[in-house]
Amino acid sequence: MVSTKPPSGMRDYLPDAVAKRRYVLGKIENVFQRYGFLPLETPTMEHLTTLLGKYGDEGDQLLYRVLHRGERLSRVLTQDKVEVADLAELGLRYDLTVPLARVVAQYGHLLPRFFKRYQIQPVWRADRPAKGRFREFYQCDVDITGTTSLLAEAEVVNAISEVLEHLSFRNVRIALNHRVVLRSMIEVTGIGHALEETALVAIDKLDKIGPSGVQDELIARGIAPAAAQRLLDLTTVAQDKDNTQTLNALRDMLPLPQAQAALDDLATLCNLTTEAPAGPRLRIAPGLARGLSYYTGPIFEVVSDDFSGSLGGGGRYDNLVGMFSSKQVPAVGFSLGLERILLLMEEQQMFPDLRMTAQVMVCPLPETPLAPVVGLTSRLRQAGITVELYPEPARLGRQLANTDDLHIPYALIIGPDEAARQTYTLKHLASGEQQQLDEAGLLRALRVG
Amino acid sequence: MVSTKPPSGMRDYLPDAVAKRRYVLGKIENVFQRYGFLPLETPTMEHLTTLLGKYGDEGDQLLYRVLHRGERLSRVLTQDKVEVADLAELGLRYDLTVPLARVVAQYGHLLPRFFKRYQIQPVWRADRPAKGRFREFYQCDVDITGTTSLLAEAEVVNAISEVLEHLSFRNVRIALNHRVVLRSMIEVTGIGHALEETALVAIDKLDKIGPSGVQDELIARGIAPAAAQRLLDLTTVAQDKDNTQTLNALRDMLPLPQAQAALDDLATLCNLTTEAPAGPRLRIAPGLARGLSYYTGPIFEVVSDDFSGSLGGGGRYDNLVGMFSSKQVPAVGFSLGLERILLLMEEQQMFPDLRMTAQVMVCPLPETPLAPVVGLTSRLRQAGITVELYPEPARLGRQLANTDDLHIPYALIIGPDEAARQTYTLKHLASGEQQQLDEAGLLRALRVG
Repeated sequence: MVSTKPPSGMRDYLPDAVAKRRYVLGKIENVFQRYGFLPLETPTMEHLTTLLGKYGDEGDQLLYRVLHRGERLSRVLTQDKVEVADLAELGLRYDLTVPLARVVAQYGHLLPRFFKRYQIQPVWRADRPAKGRFREFYQCDVDITGTTSLLAEAEVVNAISEVLEHLSFRNVRIALNHRVVLRSMIEVTGIGHALEETALVAIDKLDKIGPSGVQDELIARGIAPAAAQRLLDLTTVAQDKDNTQTLNALRDMLPLPQAQAALDDLATLCNLTTEAPAGPRLRIAPGLARGLSYYTGPIFEVVSDDFSGSLGGGGRYDNLVGMFSSKQVPAVGFSLGLERILLLMEEQQMFPDLRMTAQVMVCPLPETPLAPVVGLTSRLRQAGITVELYPEPARLGRQLANTDDLHIPYALIIGPDEAARQTYTLKHLASGEQQQLDEAGLLRALRVG
Repeated sequence: MVSTKPPSGMRDYLPDAVAKRRYVLGKIENVFQRYGFLPLETPTMEHLTTLLGKYGDEGDQLLYRVLHRGERLSRVLTQDKVEVADLAELGLRYDLTVPLARVVAQYGHLLPRFFKRYQIQPVWRADRPAKGRFREFYQCDVDITGTTSLLAEAEVVNAISEVLEHLSFRNVRIALNHRVVLRSMIEVTGIGHALEETALVAIDKLDKIGPSGVQDELIARGIAPAAAQRLLDLTTVAQDKDNTQTLNALRDMLPLPQAQAALDDLATLCNLTTEAPAGPRLRIAPGLARGLSYYTGPIFEVVSDDFSGSLGGGGRYDNLVGMFSSKQVPAVGFSLGLERILLLMEEQQMFPDLRMTAQVMVCPLPETPLAPVVGLTSRLRQAGITVELYPEPARLGRQLANTDDLHIPYALIIGPDEAARQTYTLKHLASGEQQQLDEAGLLRALRVG
């Protein structure tokens, strides 16, 4: 007998789980739409040439590749030496940002000049499964292409903040940093450009392993102890400071012109959102690095004291579309991870009652002619009522017990006489109350009920 | 520069296309829910052991397989001889029926005894792309597991009929046949069991290549000319007959007890739906064969004179769950193909206006302070209004032209004075009419507008 479990790191969603997912997705989508974002969907598969080199070495390793088929595969398998590159040219979507960049490069002339798109689709990463980390998971992205204006940053952080508000998340902040600030920190501490990426990877773990852990790791990665200490001082400068104090401290510590300009951007973004949902949530976080290599400007991440890890992140990436096109198109975006949101909402019991039950179970007695029963059932449904029909001949007690098991509030009992007289018994299971109703009466009773 | 097109047979859906897809999916889902079907979602990937052998040889060939990764793949590639089976153990979902059977086998104890589920997800088949045929496409399935009652058949054909009605499809019929009737036809014509499958494949082409084409093909496939003629006579017996006449003719021509019982089932199903949506649409079609090998009882297909091919199909499959479990669970289902529905609706211009445009574009003048503008924009959105914000400093004429290009009906003009006085100019672009409004007035104007 073959295994009936889903593949490792992937899940089946039974009806109650689907209901929770849709509840959250509905809230997210509603906010995205009110912000003027338009929906985009892209294929599950992308050319590997589109995907490779966009997510760093680790990303390339985690890509799922789709095997060639038929004659093409047969030919490859007769080669003396078979290479991975001979076996696949398609891979599964790894995020929603690279597909957007490809779409903007391909259809730019058909899209609005400032293209505000949202996209909610699954992505696949062959990561080691862990709590809240799956190999198939949904991302919910908003992005704006076509402008370098910080109003675009304001739009995406406000949209994400409003989503978090609508989902009733408390104590959630949006950490804010800037790639140029990070690069300047590397520069002023004397860590060479060659070690920039490795230093940022270590810095990104500040939340997880603490300052001394990061310092050890920086030194282990070949950075001089003094430089490591200076970098650590910079990335932890926000402690016990408000945004203005942090920005002032960073201005003092990073006297490079490009760093000053980047800090001005962060100050402007904070100012733009003072009266908007993101305002109270934005928090300058000089230790925020973000893994993906394509960011060029401000970067964001949703963080909370209530949990480790993040619910989402994003940033500006002005060069990504240019990797697919001769035209550079600036862009900024923010991505929410559905699975972590659901996990937290589950842990903190944030879901309302989402049970999907029919309003009424139609219960024909074994000797009732069924064609009129099916007809009545159809007409009730056409009137907008959610109706279940007991599918097998069974005595009434059994049908009522099943109706109750399914939490369906009403049973509509149809014996042969009732079918003939076209007057039916509507029984409210909780109270035991029964009414004799014709079809018009039924519609009235169930439409309000 | 790498190609920015999606992979062959797959598509990007820009916002207008997504809107059309969602319009149709919304209608489908609404009907499914009123019939008491509950949503299920399964992973994109399945174990190949789950998929292989369920769809016939052709299906196995069209499966997408996911390449092993990392060390596991490296080890395989050092083998002297690399076999396909060494390279992959996961494949992409090929339909929604096999995953349902696996789910029922895995979680049966958690599911209602009569499990009515709907599932709307993409599937992948490496078919040759053609008009209306893609390699990634959506199926919309309803199935009922746990009962052999023909009321279950009635439920699924009624649900599908009501969907077709809601989408305003005219002249659409549901062809109806029975696997046991087909098998009996093979038996009485003297075509041996060994040639049963090959004969059915030829019969299935009746619509496409006509009776003489089918006869040629039957003979070419090794069936004696006289048997081929008898089979053809049987499969075309419905011509110019109503369902009762067709059933009577088949009763005469198929004097086997199992055929008589199957014909009784078809008569019962027709009777059950006389007062329901499927009633006027059901049409006994002795030539309907359906490709998939797992069907065991009644089979259905949506057909029309307005187009060739089908919008969907289904049938009873009482043995499929048993392939994954020691417990046999009977089941019946119906699947609609979204892509063909969309293609037809597009051709026949059946879509209403689905344009998603914001209600208002907020247009700050270049010298206007932006924080209050962002604040006002947020509050309008929080009040449920869809609002766009022009993201760059630009003169008003340009902003209004852009607003008009996007078909946004109103522009909200905010100069520095207006920001200071908190009174704004709302301009209706089509009429040129302007109003000076405070925030409360704006909310009133835009909420109704």
